[in-house]
Amino acid sequence: MLFTAAQISLLVNGKIEGDAGKTVSSFGKIEDAFEGQLTFLANPKYEEYLYSTKASIAIINTRYELREPVTPTLIRVDDAYSAFALLMHKFQEMAKGTLTGIQQPSFIADTAVIGKNVYVGAFTYIGEHVVIGDHCRIFPNCFIGDNVVLGENCHIQPGVKIMHDCKLGNNVNIHPGTVIGSDGFGFAPQADGTFNKIPQIGNVVIENNVEIGSNATIDRATMGSTVIKSGAKLDNLIQIAHNVEVGNSTVIAAQAGISGSTKIGNNVKIGGQAGLVGHIQIADGTRINAQSGVSKSIKNPFGYVTGSPAQDSATALRSQAIFKNLPEMEKRLKFLEDLVKQLLVEKAAFSQNGFK
Amino acid sequence: MLFTAAQISLLVNGKIEGDAGKTVSSFGKIEDAFEGQLTFLANPKYEEYLYSTKASIAIINTRYELREPVTPTLIRVDDAYSAFALLMHKFQEMAKGTLTGIQQPSFIADTAVIGKNVYVGAFTYIGEHVVIGDHCRIFPNCFIGDNVVLGENCHIQPGVKIMHDCKLGNNVNIHPGTVIGSDGFGFAPQADGTFNKIPQIGNVVIENNVEIGSNATIDRATMGSTVIKSGAKLDNLIQIAHNVEVGNSTVIAAQAGISGSTKIGNNVKIGGQAGLVGHIQIADGTRINAQSGVSKSIKNPFGYVTGSPAQDSATALRSQAIFKNLPEMEKRLKFLEDLVKQLLVEKAAFSQNGFK
Amino acid sequence: MLFTAAQISLLVNGKIEGDAGKTVSSFGKIEDAFEGQLTFLANPKYEEYLYSTKASIAIINTRYELREPVTPTLIRVDDAYSAFALLMHKFQEMAKGTLTGIQQPSFIADTAVIGKNVYVGAFTYIGEHVVIGDHCRIFPNCFIGDNVVLGENCHIQPGVKIMHDCKLGNNVNIHPGTVIGSDGFGFAPQADGTFNKIPQIGNVVIENNVEIGSNATIDRATMGSTVIKSGAKLDNLIQIAHNVEVGNSTVIAAQAGISGSTKIGNNVKIGGQAGLVGHIQIADGTRINAQSGVSKSIKNPFGYVTGSPAQDSATALRSQAIFKNLPEMEKRLKFLEDLVKQLLVEKAAFSQNGFK
Repeated sequence: MLFTAAQISLLVNGKIEGDAGKTVSSFGKIEDAFEGQLTFLANPKYEEYLYSTKASIAIINTRYELREPVTPTLIRVDDAYSAFALLMHKFQEMAKGTLTGIQQPSFIADTAVIGKNVYVGAFTYIGEHVVIGDHCRIFPNCFIGDNVVLGENCHIQPGVKIMHDCKLGNNVNIHPGTVIGSDGFGFAPQADGTFNKIPQIGNVVIENNVEIGSNATIDRATMGSTVIKSGAKLDNLIQIAHNVEVGNSTVIAAQAGISGSTKIGNNVKIGGQAGLVGHIQIADGTRINAQSGVSKSIKNPFGYVTGSPAQDSATALRSQAIFKNLPEMEKRLKFLEDLVKQLLVEKAAFSQNGFK
Repeated sequence: MLFTAAQISLLVNGKIEGDAGKTVSSFGKIEDAFEGQLTFLANPKYEEYLYSTKASIAIINTRYELREPVTPTLIRVDDAYSAFALLMHKFQEMAKGTLTGIQQPSFIADTAVIGKNVYVGAFTYIGEHVVIGDHCRIFPNCFIGDNVVLGENCHIQPGVKIMHDCKLGNNVNIHPGTVIGSDGFGFAPQADGTFNKIPQIGNVVIENNVEIGSNATIDRATMGSTVIKSGAKLDNLIQIAHNVEVGNSTVIAAQAGISGSTKIGNNVKIGGQAGLVGHIQIADGTRINAQSGVSKSIKNPFGYVTGSPAQDSATALRSQAIFKNLPEMEKRLKFLEDLVKQLLVEKAAFSQNGFK
Repeated sequence: MLFTAAQISLLVNGKIEGDAGKTVSSFGKIEDAFEGQLTFLANPKYEEYLYSTKASIAIINTRYELREPVTPTLIRVDDAYSAFALLMHKFQEMAKGTLTGIQQPSFIADTAVIGKNVYVGAFTYIGEHVVIGDHCRIFPNCFIGDNVVLGENCHIQPGVKIMHDCKLGNNVNIHPGTVIGSDGFGFAPQADGTFNKIPQIGNVVIENNVEIGSNATIDRATMGSTVIKSGAKLDNLIQIAHNVEVGNSTVIAAQAGISGSTKIGNNVKIGGQAGLVGHIQIADGTRINAQSGVSKSIKNPFGYVTGSPAQDSATALRSQAIFKNLPEMEKRLKFLEDLVKQLLVEKAAFSQNGFK
């Protein structure tokens, strides 16, 4: 599909500078966009590219002052980044079309209740007493276990497995291969060194507007619920253990792991590959650096921790800086030891001779 | 289903205190159970909740002495935790019912041999010469490659892939999305910087009573077998490389990774996100802390290591404690240097003047 | 299938010592091969096993000098390891046979174009406008999204999901459960603490001869392409974020994670569980140790880094060695402080008395 600068300007309520008839058919980043693409400039770090980009149309901020003439047609708006994101959304809407209906072969239990305007992909299994809300799209090769409830407008991508009794709210987006509701890792050690499985009879509750990346694993509670609260965003390959709670609008980056029964507050940011031990609390607004190992509760909100074991980031960074020079520090200590030893030898000699 | 205190007491061989006719229909933790739920008290840390819980029935230890009257009907047993776990097991047995038969559509090669009382879910693929033992349940969307052998009573959850030639014992439980028998990561570097694949023609052998979490990956051996021994318990998102051996009743927490040809003894405990290099041996009973990086064999049994690189835990904890205060330590060193420098200056002056 | 030493010798252009009629039917490592197996000796570390192995035939280097008589028939070649790998390849070719044709039930959109001699497994979904090159094998339970293009001779293993618009070259091998082209993790923070999803409208491009392990995740670009270049080898459970570039013949071990927009050069080696922050460049030939945390660009080629945060490996190893003895070092510092304090006290006394 081709769009003119005039059409795009209308969509974002912008002001055109240059040829309003120029057309684009796709999006590109300013540093590598080519002719026929729409781009934008929001971050001043990329300013130089505005003067060399091959993009046909560029969206820029109203207040940005040109240093020299540019090639693309400009569309000026208050917030170039938001305007561009809006256009990408609209483009995506058009591209995905209106996927509805039940593809065959699929397996839907007689007792399942399927809402209006739902898409069920081929080779997807929907168990007994499942309830699927309106406008949900469940892609091919998914498994939806018995008694699962999906709210409206959920997006369950290929190969997702949602195990029995789990509940999802509205607008939940789960990426391919993710497992919701596998058993928590609970075993009772026996006298002979073997383990007895502790039944995991709880479920997982995922609230509205949650997004979970691909190949992640969210375990069901032993009893009660593992809870992912409203607006939380979880990246790929994340492990959430049984009975964990993840707060509203909390963000967890890829490959992080949260151990059992830990409660994470709202608006927390957890970096990639970070690990949290079980049974701790993390205060609202905490930031946890990538690869950190958090072994204790964090009680003061809006803290920032780093390292394994994690400590206050400012302190950790100072310790890390010194760690890099530990051999140097060890040399200084050795040098000082030698000096002091020398002083002591001289003093002893002085005592023996000078004071005799 | 409703159960009375009298019925439950019978199942666990307990002694009732209070109304034997009170009923429950589900389980709850003592700190958040509600009316109509069964709970238990085993850990003294939770004692206070016994006096405030809304649970209708509570299982407690015979020897526990009440400090004040309680609301729930009590059932006294020798070991409250075990009795409660037993009841959860019985509940789970009833809930899952008797899932048997071959759902359609599924794909079962003509040469496959399927045991008695087996469940094969829809969209599951079973290859040539596969042998499935009695009472196995293979859920939807699984892939069972050619020549795979499953013992009795295995539980192969949705979307599991077991690649050709792998062998499983009895009572093996594999959680959704896990891959058994993908190729080991073996490539021969060539003179031009590219790599030639080394064929991985071995398999994976999983012994009896092993449980493996969701989205884990267990690679086949280059030659011979990658072996997970009897009673081992592996959590989600674990990586087991080619030719690894995991010992009996060894427990590995989520996101840990074991590199090629490493041999792990019996009753070892490996924490989450820990990593082990290849070609090492880990002695029986070793404990490896979360996020540790083990780069050498551990020869003495029942050790405990921490850190990356891992060292004896007691020492590691002392080093970590000092690491947190490295900036302070560096200041002390600097202060001492200045003092000694001062002493030397004074001594030099003294030497020059006092002894002239 | 049985092969004689004479037949094998012919295949690898070798020279027989011993009984040319001895037969083998499988492969074994020299330390645990049994009768009827073919083995090899290349690494001198395993030399001793040549004299105790039960293998029937052993391939060894021409220049290797026997210390004493051996049991197996020997086949001498210039490069025993390569000869053995060649035989494993030939064996694997024979074992897998010629898997072609479309298994039923599968789902292939009318607009998809399927090449010659292609295998499509049961329960595999192939979307609109997909192009599958000649000799591709797509195993059961795969999802191939709309507009995906596969080159020739790709090996797409069970349960792989390749999302819409992604492009693969020739001879690409993707292991079970891996997800190619899930959305990048991009969200715009809002004033109220919630997040708006940033559409991810780019794709993933995988060049020729790439191999990707099982349950890995490769995210699509926000705009443009996430690129895995020719000959790169990625292990299991790896996370590649949006807009990352992985260079030619670069090798990444299991559970490593690369954050958004990072560009990795050619022939780089990244160890297991390593993590790289976003928006950095890694020079050609860099080696990154297991569990490292790389937070800055690495500009000089062929460097070697270790630690979190990563630093030059030689320095890091020295720092790590001292870290293990930090308590000892702290004691030395304390001892020195006490000594100097003592010196100062004595000097003060001397000043007061000796110089009065």
